[in-house]
Amino acid sequence: MIRSEETICAPASGAGGAISIIRVSGSQSFSICENIFLPADKNIKVSEQKGYSILFGEIRSGEEIIDEVLISFFRSPHSYTGENSVEISCHASPYIIKKILELLIKNGAISALPGEFTQRAFMNGKMDLSQAEAVADIIASTTRAAHKVSMNQMRGGFSKEIEKLRFELLNFASLIELELDFGEEDVEFANRKELKSIIINVKELADRLTNSFELGNAVKNGIPVTIVGKPNSGKSTLLNALLMEDKAIVSDIPGTTRDSIEDTIIIDGLEYRFIDTAGLHETTDVIESMGIKRTYEKINQASVILLTDEITDNPDMINKRISAIRDMIKNTGKQLMILVNKTDLEPLQRQSDLGKMIDVRKNEMLLFISAQEKNGIENLRQQLSEISIREKLNSNDVIVTNVRHYEALLRVSESLGRVLYGLDNQIPEDLIAVDIRQAIHYLGEITGLITTDEILGNIFKNFCIGK
Amino acid sequence: MIRSEETICAPASGAGGAISIIRVSGSQSFSICENIFLPADKNIKVSEQKGYSILFGEIRSGEEIIDEVLISFFRSPHSYTGENSVEISCHASPYIIKKILELLIKNGAISALPGEFTQRAFMNGKMDLSQAEAVADIIASTTRAAHKVSMNQMRGGFSKEIEKLRFELLNFASLIELELDFGEEDVEFANRKELKSIIINVKELADRLTNSFELGNAVKNGIPVTIVGKPNSGKSTLLNALLMEDKAIVSDIPGTTRDSIEDTIIIDGLEYRFIDTAGLHETTDVIESMGIKRTYEKINQASVILLTDEITDNPDMINKRISAIRDMIKNTGKQLMILVNKTDLEPLQRQSDLGKMIDVRKNEMLLFISAQEKNGIENLRQQLSEISIREKLNSNDVIVTNVRHYEALLRVSESLGRVLYGLDNQIPEDLIAVDIRQAIHYLGEITGLITTDEILGNIFKNFCIGK
Repeated sequence: MIRSEETICAPASGAGGAISIIRVSGSQSFSICENIFLPADKNIKVSEQKGYSILFGEIRSGEEIIDEVLISFFRSPHSYTGENSVEISCHASPYIIKKILELLIKNGAISALPGEFTQRAFMNGKMDLSQAEAVADIIASTTRAAHKVSMNQMRGGFSKEIEKLRFELLNFASLIELELDFGEEDVEFANRKELKSIIINVKELADRLTNSFELGNAVKNGIPVTIVGKPNSGKSTLLNALLMEDKAIVSDIPGTTRDSIEDTIIIDGLEYRFIDTAGLHETTDVIESMGIKRTYEKINQASVILLTDEITDNPDMINKRISAIRDMIKNTGKQLMILVNKTDLEPLQRQSDLGKMIDVRKNEMLLFISAQEKNGIENLRQQLSEISIREKLNSNDVIVTNVRHYEALLRVSESLGRVLYGLDNQIPEDLIAVDIRQAIHYLGEITGLITTDEILGNIFKNFCIGK
Repeated sequence: MIRSEETICAPASGAGGAISIIRVSGSQSFSICENIFLPADKNIKVSEQKGYSILFGEIRSGEEIIDEVLISFFRSPHSYTGENSVEISCHASPYIIKKILELLIKNGAISALPGEFTQRAFMNGKMDLSQAEAVADIIASTTRAAHKVSMNQMRGGFSKEIEKLRFELLNFASLIELELDFGEEDVEFANRKELKSIIINVKELADRLTNSFELGNAVKNGIPVTIVGKPNSGKSTLLNALLMEDKAIVSDIPGTTRDSIEDTIIIDGLEYRFIDTAGLHETTDVIESMGIKRTYEKINQASVILLTDEITDNPDMINKRISAIRDMIKNTGKQLMILVNKTDLEPLQRQSDLGKMIDVRKNEMLLFISAQEKNGIENLRQQLSEISIREKLNSNDVIVTNVRHYEALLRVSESLGRVLYGLDNQIPEDLIAVDIRQAIHYLGEITGLITTDEILGNIFKNFCIGK
């Protein structure tokens, strides 16, 4: 039997809790269910149950009652996958979940692969490929920003944008190909100038999307932040102060745990991910001097650099360190925040004096803090929340978060670049048409109009089981 | 507002996975839902939705779409709690779960306490107290035996047994109290001999239940097994061999993890819990000689003792060790299994010779194994699976697994003992009636006919949130 004709099953909710959901989808869902489920009302015929309804009853294995469950029924095409589906809501006992899955498989279902429910939804035309990919992003989203972007994508906002580009190019292609058909007659249907302006327009849109990827990546994976500074300038204390404050906030949310997101903080709906902090966690700072290769690598990976100095430092030395980092990040758009730490060691006058002597440039920030006493940490959070990337986020522009889409859009842009060159240099229409078709092809790959088993395999293998 | 009049909400499924369930129960469930949920079919009025039906739509916070969800509706009294309830099936994103809970609370719901849904089910007469307690046991069950016992209890098997006892005693009490009413007239309605036989009968039933607690405890918490033996006799290798084989089996089951059940194995639906194995995990056995206090304590806690000897040992020494343990466990019903390890070091003839020289008594077992080579381990598992406790399990007798029930039943038995003494010694009816009423009281505490806030608090605080 072809896999897509099989009925699949998998646990769909997380381990633990009170209730577990087991999902079943495929043409045999109802009949398999009928074999293992006895509704409380014995007159009901399970296989004839209508969609969007629920039955209460027992899952049985022969005479053994496995559990009392609720089963939700969905009839094709009005289900997540587009197929007949049932969702069994059982007690979250490891034994019960295992037994129900065993029973389903014994009665003809097979274990679902990761993402197979969503893959079927795609195959059955319930969503396009970029929407399917957004489902996994939604589930993984822990911040408001990541949620917003992936929700927009799941609801087709991104697809609409891609379709718009594709539609423009299809129009263009039909004009070019018309010319090709009449090629012998030397007819020129399309006004070259108009054609060019269409392509420029589409390319601009594609480029705007590829450019949004830096932001999209920050939204999806967190804004990379690094803490650098001379030994004993309080890097680890600063990190702990930032993390601790956030931990206190997060621990109020039921069902969430900080363990998996160590060394990240969420400020105003956006995640900040501290990179390469392994050394900072040790009680004494790992000995590292400014300018070594490792510091350079850390800075290279980060979008925001927190440079820690001490209030007792010589201002010339501080300026020297600032200048060294400034050189490293020149023209990268990286944000430098200069933190003068240990303010508790000196009278306030020192801050004021030092403030005048430190060379702070445009787009840089100078903050006085005491990581030890947690002074200035809230202000630092505030400043972090206002870095420039956020402005772009608040617009309603579509943002690319997916590497696969980003790469496809880069290729679209390259193809369109060649089309423009062709138009400017009187290249024959048939060669221009090749590039246009390529651009259309790459756009089709994003939404899954054009796809291969390899692409699908790569996408869905990263889904969780049961989705 | 009295808490029971509030509408409660909580996440009901475990963290992670693809889908999460958020449970809402109380009179405001439907109207709160209507405030935050926009059904896909805009003509549908959420608050008028009938029970056992499902709607698809969006959870919204103002203009922000929080998620596309399925909501299941249940109308009082046909719900788990007996109240109006809804279950929101959303994407399992930490952000979405948090936002939906926030929205529910903003619209008038309160966070549910642990076990509060089940407590409400009890309060609304959907189940008695012992059934409610069984819900938590079902969720915790990881083995077939634990599942069977708690499922029987949840379905009222245990309650029926208790009700039977209570009914007998109520009959008895009415006869006695009739006599009291006519006490002045010296009428004796009840035939003393018949009365006595009723009480003997009920007490026997109560005692059978209390006696089942040892088995019940083994079913619920695992059969305690200890490994003892002289240093370097292969105790840790044996433990690893047993655990490893089991790990290989368990790891095939999706969604289960061995981490939380380290040092337990499941054989044929029953759990065996290795006690005090901390020392065994070290690469070299912790030095301990036979007969020391610690070994005694280990043996004292166990139901099954695995004594490891070496094939190269002097048979007299083996017999001496066996005899020492035999003395310790005399009349305790503990099972001694004598394991002669390292059979790979000697020719087969040695096993046969040694077998004749080792003094094995009735109800003891002698097995030759090589923990290193994993010879005889499967046989050991088989022998463990056939220890006497299992016979009792396979009968359909009701088993007590709950300490609270066990203690109540002990008190019932004590009270009935005093009744019997009273009947035998012509104690006045009014004194006998006091003991009868006490026995009836304790039985009522089990099913929750008689209860206090303290009892309820103690029971439900151990439930998980969302149940």
